[in-house]
Amino acid sequence: MKRILPELDPFRLIQTSVDHRENRPTEAVMSLGNGYMGARGNYEEDYTGDTLKGIYVAGVWMPDKTRVGWWKNGYPRYYGKVINAPDFLMFHLYVNGRRVDLARTDIETFRRTVDMRTGVMDREMVLRTEEGGRLRITSSRFFSIDIRQIACMEYAVEALDGTASVAVETGLDANVRNADANYGEQFWDVNAVEAGSPLYLESETIENAFGVPRFAVGFSALTRCAEGAVRRETVRSERAVFDRFEAQLAPGEALRLEKVVSVVTSRDMERGQLRAAGAEILRRAASDGAELLRARHSEAWRARWKKCDVEIEGDVAAQQGIRFNLFQLWSTYDGSDERLNIGPKGFTGEKYGGAAYYDTEGYCFPMFLATASPEIALSLLKFRFNILDKAKENAGRIGMRGALYPMVTFDGEECHNEWEITFEELHRNAAMIHAIYNYTCYTGDESYIRDFGIHVMVEVARFWACRASYNPRKDCYMLLGVTGPNEYDNNVNNNFLTNYMAKWCIEYALEYVEKFAYPLPAEEARHWREVAEKMYLNYDEETKLFMQQDGFMDKELVPASRIPEEELPLCKHWSWDRILRSCFIKQADVVLAFYYFPHRFTLEQKQANFRFYEPFTVHESSLSPSMYSTVASACGFADDAYRLYQRAARLDLDNFNADTEDGLHITSMAGSWIALAHGFAGMDYQRGVLAFAPRCPQHWKQLKMRLVYRGRLLEIRFNARAFHCELLEGEPLEIEVDGVSHKVETILDCPLG
Amino acid sequence: MKRILPELDPFRLIQTSVDHRENRPTEAVMSLGNGYMGARGNYEEDYTGDTLKGIYVAGVWMPDKTRVGWWKNGYPRYYGKVINAPDFLMFHLYVNGRRVDLARTDIETFRRTVDMRTGVMDREMVLRTEEGGRLRITSSRFFSIDIRQIACMEYAVEALDGTASVAVETGLDANVRNADANYGEQFWDVNAVEAGSPLYLESETIENAFGVPRFAVGFSALTRCAEGAVRRETVRSERAVFDRFEAQLAPGEALRLEKVVSVVTSRDMERGQLRAAGAEILRRAASDGAELLRARHSEAWRARWKKCDVEIEGDVAAQQGIRFNLFQLWSTYDGSDERLNIGPKGFTGEKYGGAAYYDTEGYCFPMFLATASPEIALSLLKFRFNILDKAKENAGRIGMRGALYPMVTFDGEECHNEWEITFEELHRNAAMIHAIYNYTCYTGDESYIRDFGIHVMVEVARFWACRASYNPRKDCYMLLGVTGPNEYDNNVNNNFLTNYMAKWCIEYALEYVEKFAYPLPAEEARHWREVAEKMYLNYDEETKLFMQQDGFMDKELVPASRIPEEELPLCKHWSWDRILRSCFIKQADVVLAFYYFPHRFTLEQKQANFRFYEPFTVHESSLSPSMYSTVASACGFADDAYRLYQRAARLDLDNFNADTEDGLHITSMAGSWIALAHGFAGMDYQRGVLAFAPRCPQHWKQLKMRLVYRGRLLEIRFNARAFHCELLEGEPLEIEVDGVSHKVETILDCPLG
Repeated sequence: MKRILPELDPFRLIQTSVDHRENRPTEAVMSLGNGYMGARGNYEEDYTGDTLKGIYVAGVWMPDKTRVGWWKNGYPRYYGKVINAPDFLMFHLYVNGRRVDLARTDIETFRRTVDMRTGVMDREMVLRTEEGGRLRITSSRFFSIDIRQIACMEYAVEALDGTASVAVETGLDANVRNADANYGEQFWDVNAVEAGSPLYLESETIENAFGVPRFAVGFSALTRCAEGAVRRETVRSERAVFDRFEAQLAPGEALRLEKVVSVVTSRDMERGQLRAAGAEILRRAASDGAELLRARHSEAWRARWKKCDVEIEGDVAAQQGIRFNLFQLWSTYDGSDERLNIGPKGFTGEKYGGAAYYDTEGYCFPMFLATASPEIALSLLKFRFNILDKAKENAGRIGMRGALYPMVTFDGEECHNEWEITFEELHRNAAMIHAIYNYTCYTGDESYIRDFGIHVMVEVARFWACRASYNPRKDCYMLLGVTGPNEYDNNVNNNFLTNYMAKWCIEYALEYVEKFAYPLPAEEARHWREVAEKMYLNYDEETKLFMQQDGFMDKELVPASRIPEEELPLCKHWSWDRILRSCFIKQADVVLAFYYFPHRFTLEQKQANFRFYEPFTVHESSLSPSMYSTVASACGFADDAYRLYQRAARLDLDNFNADTEDGLHITSMAGSWIALAHGFAGMDYQRGVLAFAPRCPQHWKQLKMRLVYRGRLLEIRFNARAFHCELLEGEPLEIEVDGVSHKVETILDCPLG
Repeated sequence: MKRILPELDPFRLIQTSVDHRENRPTEAVMSLGNGYMGARGNYEEDYTGDTLKGIYVAGVWMPDKTRVGWWKNGYPRYYGKVINAPDFLMFHLYVNGRRVDLARTDIETFRRTVDMRTGVMDREMVLRTEEGGRLRITSSRFFSIDIRQIACMEYAVEALDGTASVAVETGLDANVRNADANYGEQFWDVNAVEAGSPLYLESETIENAFGVPRFAVGFSALTRCAEGAVRRETVRSERAVFDRFEAQLAPGEALRLEKVVSVVTSRDMERGQLRAAGAEILRRAASDGAELLRARHSEAWRARWKKCDVEIEGDVAAQQGIRFNLFQLWSTYDGSDERLNIGPKGFTGEKYGGAAYYDTEGYCFPMFLATASPEIALSLLKFRFNILDKAKENAGRIGMRGALYPMVTFDGEECHNEWEITFEELHRNAAMIHAIYNYTCYTGDESYIRDFGIHVMVEVARFWACRASYNPRKDCYMLLGVTGPNEYDNNVNNNFLTNYMAKWCIEYALEYVEKFAYPLPAEEARHWREVAEKMYLNYDEETKLFMQQDGFMDKELVPASRIPEEELPLCKHWSWDRILRSCFIKQADVVLAFYYFPHRFTLEQKQANFRFYEPFTVHESSLSPSMYSTVASACGFADDAYRLYQRAARLDLDNFNADTEDGLHITSMAGSWIALAHGFAGMDYQRGVLAFAPRCPQHWKQLKMRLVYRGRLLEIRFNARAFHCELLEGEPLEIEVDGVSHKVETILDCPLG
């Protein structure tokens, strides 16, 4: 663990110095986004230190030839890549003719904050330059959530104690590359570079051999000089266009710029309209001015927080962690475009090229479901419904009937190529159904299943029934050759979680096949029923253990605490075979079942399995600690629950996995919300009632969460001694607290323990 | 199956037409080599049809960045590539100024033969050209096994019925590429191109980022016009130099060329000496003239055949098959350079970039051991001894002690990167020891073990002892997470063959540790003994089955005969997961143990396991049928033995696996010799005596084999009724036939049955 921002704050991210060795992780945590576009916290100025430049536009991607040494039948032809967009955030600063390189400049004071309440980054720093004495630079940046195509920046240079000849260039620059490019190639063609007012640059993803549509993006930029410029010119080159502002600053004088940029894409309009539409959006925004844009944007953020905020009193690190997670999740996805999904790195890095992993359904879905209007959760469900045909093709490719949802995808086409994952990590298919189940339980509305979900449910059940093989010697159905959630073993037989979820998916589909009279052939229904009934589940009644997979007990069983520290993380120190044959578990596997279905398992079972598996778990997936924390809460293991929550909530802020530099673990951030809501608050809605079983960490003064539930806005507040539920909006309702029913009219107060 | 050369012949390969659709496989089977260099049977003339050009120089290779999508710790940084050498075999033919493209020329008659008895390719064809009427082209080619640096060619053009203006260009051309180049790059720099007499071209492998030495190769060529040229000139370009001969041919007149080329490399001398050394070797060879060179080369081949020939009377297809196999094996490797090994494709293709697989020890070793002087087998053993340090590093890389021999290598450095193979296919390590065992048993000479082998044996045993994990619940040692010989399942536990061989390796090492008082710490020896004693071997006494791996009986057990024909081979039609979870076996696995140690298993065990596993076996590795055939012989399953022998012996000639186009399956060719010697002849020498248990296929009139055994040259001849052993050279000896001892003074005649 290494705290990236030493100064803690409940609602802000505060950086007080420039540490060149930590620049990449710092850039990552200072990322901003508005669901439509976003960027890492790269500095405005040139910076020749270690940096990963990254500006991304949602849904704009490139298929790139997959690199594999040994091709396997059925591998996808290409890998999807998020691409680093033309740079519209940069301000090249010149002092007395010399371009300032922040990596080689004497920085006297530095303070950068991201105010998560308002979604704005502000920076103030004082530079000591040889040529122009000390300069104060102030800047700000936000991506508007009021007008999503708009980014807004301010940049000011003030001379403090000498006369400085200053110039600033800012504009649009397509001289960008992906760090993740097979051969270092450019991913953008440039269609237009225009030096008018506004500046205009139109770029288009390069041609590809895979028949994937190309995306064109139009950038329009207007920069206003509010103060100080003596000369302005426009500089145009083949792939870039800049406005250049020059000023002679006496001490106390400043050059102040306001820049507004609009970004429009061919995803939303014809190519031919990009220029005009971008200019029109820009014109209207610019006429409002930066101040008004900022005010509206901030107001929209405040409205979001009203529904989703979490307050942790008495633990500022924990508080900052959860707000950071919520802030980044909402910056990545807002549900307004059902063609989009939640990339594991959001707008904070290139890694995991794809846009949709099953993390969305497994982790993010419950948070969006409970903290916003149902339309947002519906948008996520529709994303999967809309790619059902591709999921069927995908199943066909591995010789199966039904639908297998891809491991990684932009548009339904599988973009991942490790056989042990692409072809064998099947539990992702169940997560799709569990999201439908969650939606239906939480909203009480079966219309999604009736109109859309049933088709997904039937095809996924069909896949499982086909994939399970009958074992006549044991009279049961087995799932052979799978990779469970624990990716630290591959090609195993009968992963418990996978078998369990497969069985459940079939049963759940059959329930609605009957309810909505779906025309499933009787013989097929009979077969499904048989597969579900005879699904092999390896459970030992005596020890209460569910076996993670066949042969797990043959492994050398050694607790993870015995691994020498210098060999951690294992994935960076051990060869793959050693990891595979070890007992070490990358991430929650058996215990995930207890999160998915809290009331289908006894307390004894939960405790026994947690106690058995957690010591073998190295949590080398960001998705792990939150799930274990949630289950630890259910087990009454308060210390474990708290320890694992902190690891989940501050994973990136404290760089637990030493990889924040690549970008934030966006999807797993939802896990810390789950650990709070489903763990500490013990929320459950699978039995038809909204229920809580509060277990607040002892040293927290209070945990406060907002929930949007069936047309109501609720606030729950609790600590170890009492639980309160306040109805902020909507009709009274019944809730259950520790198994006892209560009616909530305005405020419910329940003493605990 | 598709016979590539329809005309059968006991000692020749005969091609009687040019079939453009079958050009690549035909090129492969017409390959020639002399252990030092070799080439596919590319046509002399230009050919724009489907072709894979390939000329290779032994031990000259290139490290190329390995292409993998998802890197695993411990993967090698590079992949070794055999490289297509500058072309010195080509004759560009011009008729009336037009370059002849054999793919677009009317070929009236065509006959090409490779005489395997003499190692020479001859071709005669009549072309019908628009410009010059009919032309008869005759050509020949061989790589001398008398002077290994020499290649010799003849090329003649005769006008048959019109006057033709003819030109022929031949020389040295470095404008070549590998088909297997990541980005289509050139692998050769050109150091010198000289238009003197001889022509000289010196090429050098391009720089690499891996610290691997570059190889320089000097080619010197002298072309003599024996008849008909009116004009001669030399044409030089940046990467090539040619002699050009022009002639005006009246009907019946001919242009005849003789070309001699020397090839020398920096593997054998300083770079600065290449030109002079190459020129000197060439001068001497050329002064002897093509006829004498050919006579000496052919004589050397005849001497080889004297020791290794196999005659099958009454089955010309089988006869041609085994001679083809022996011819190609000896063309690939002759034991004269212990830095070399036997690439799976020899000089016949680029695939499987590495030079040494465990195929050498597992398959080729017994043939070289029994058909040549012991120095050749010793040379193969020394190759492994010399890279022991690298094998220790390799073990260290996966966290193990001792030595793990690489899966694929040129110089000891692992060059393969599929985790399931590189890190998990461990039985290769046992094959190294089995070769030492074979050598010692066959020669009766323990000095190799004493002086060299013991070190390899100890380090390999050390690896196994470290790799085995103790299972306290079952009080045994297990090998978890391995890939057995059957690569159609990966990451399995307790592959029987692997466990069995590991146990044997440890025991065999301990035997010689004691015999030669090797300083093994007592505690370590105790541990080894315990691992060997408690090695888990899953055997069912009732069924006599050895379980291929844990969980094998949970698979859906369906015979391979039920796979629809259009889904074969599975590796080209099924996705990998489906192959893995199926019961289908790529190649001999459990039954390999019966080949490795024929007298350690009972007849009932052999029969039960053959009957159980063979029906699941799809033989999609070229290494499979020969082993099954050998074991079938031991089982007394004559039909299976014969069927599988034919598949092994004619694998490439009949293109059973539909991949001969990539090159020949050189190493697996040795398997058909094994099926004859260890299968049909039932040869065994592990019990201290040379023993035979002859089981000749019924319809063969006679099977005749030569053997070199402890200073003697033997010929065995047998059919279903009688066995004869003739002592051709050396001292009388005792042999055993069907369990009965006999002394062989001159000829032994044993009636059978």
